[in-house]
Amino acid sequence: MGRWEPETRERLERAALELFLEQGFDRVTVPAITARAGLTTRTFHRHFRDKREVLFADADQMPVLAARLVRDAPPHLGPVDVVAHGLPTLAAAFEGRRAHLKQRKVIIDGHDGLRERELRKMETLVEAIADAFRARGVEDVTAAAVAETAVGLVKLALRRWVDSAEHQSLNAIMTDAFARLCDAFQQPHARQH
Amino acid sequence: MGRWEPETRERLERAALELFLEQGFDRVTVPAITARAGLTTRTFHRHFRDKREVLFADADQMPVLAARLVRDAPPHLGPVDVVAHGLPTLAAAFEGRRAHLKQRKVIIDGHDGLRERELRKMETLVEAIADAFRARGVEDVTAAAVAETAVGLVKLALRRWVDSAEHQSLNAIMTDAFARLCDAFQQPHARQH
Repeated sequence: MGRWEPETRERLERAALELFLEQGFDRVTVPAITARAGLTTRTFHRHFRDKREVLFADADQMPVLAARLVRDAPPHLGPVDVVAHGLPTLAAAFEGRRAHLKQRKVIIDGHDGLRERELRKMETLVEAIADAFRARGVEDVTAAAVAETAVGLVKLALRRWVDSAEHQSLNAIMTDAFARLCDAFQQPHARQH
Repeated sequence: MGRWEPETRERLERAALELFLEQGFDRVTVPAITARAGLTTRTFHRHFRDKREVLFADADQMPVLAARLVRDAPPHLGPVDVVAHGLPTLAAAFEGRRAHLKQRKVIIDGHDGLRERELRKMETLVEAIADAFRARGVEDVTAAAVAETAVGLVKLALRRWVDSAEHQSLNAIMTDAFARLCDAFQQPHARQH
């Protein structure tokens, strides 16, 4: 891809999200998106398979990225430390995308099929992380439990970031939530059960 | 309700699940369910609003039950201990329901609308638990993070219980997953992040 490509992709994305918000996802066509962006449908299809992919291209990358972060974490780290180690890189992947995510959320929340796809993406993410932990030799149930916990943290942090009035960084929100969860698990009685 | 009512409800439930599996959820009507059960549609509507409620009546109770368990836990317990304290009661609510849950899962997994409803039920459950923690005075983000973690554990344990060949109890699976997660958070390095 040439140097101009990222900007083209962003133009298509912006046009698509505007139209989804104005007309509803179901009514928008790819030609309408390209007309709004001043580009051809051929260009659109160099970047996105279909209009739904405009919303899910990033989400589709998440399991791959998360699995890589788990795989590449220093080998001596236990699973919870692997999560701590990976969160900043994961947060960085969303940098500059807050306005986009906010619009995207409105579009997805208003559409049953998209909402289901979004919720299932999170299940896929849990599975990808759990499998990556198992590949590190983490015990099966621990891998699943830590993966559920990690995705719970990511969901929670993304929700708060998108809803926040002040522009706290996603990394700060994620790290804070993680630290608070660690503290909750360190309370004196937690071990006895 | 008279003494015969629980049996009637079970008969309706069994008939409905059989038909959903045989014909697909969308094709099944309430009269078909009552004909299979040898009961009237009037009786059906004393137990269930519609055919979808046959699948979701239990799930609808979960947020209420979970919130009550959090509210009624001994006041000196921290949020993670509240989870430990509540898991056995939550598990007991599913006792004897393994075969039902297994059939239910097949029906729900094969139907987009039902799957979305199921996934959204879990979001509702997270919110109910988080709110119940906040009502106990647990800090906002901690409440949300522990709620996500608790629901992650419940999802994971239910999935494993339904899929397991040997009939391990749900409580044993939940308690084991919880203990392993606690252990993962107790590892020496976890606090440093």
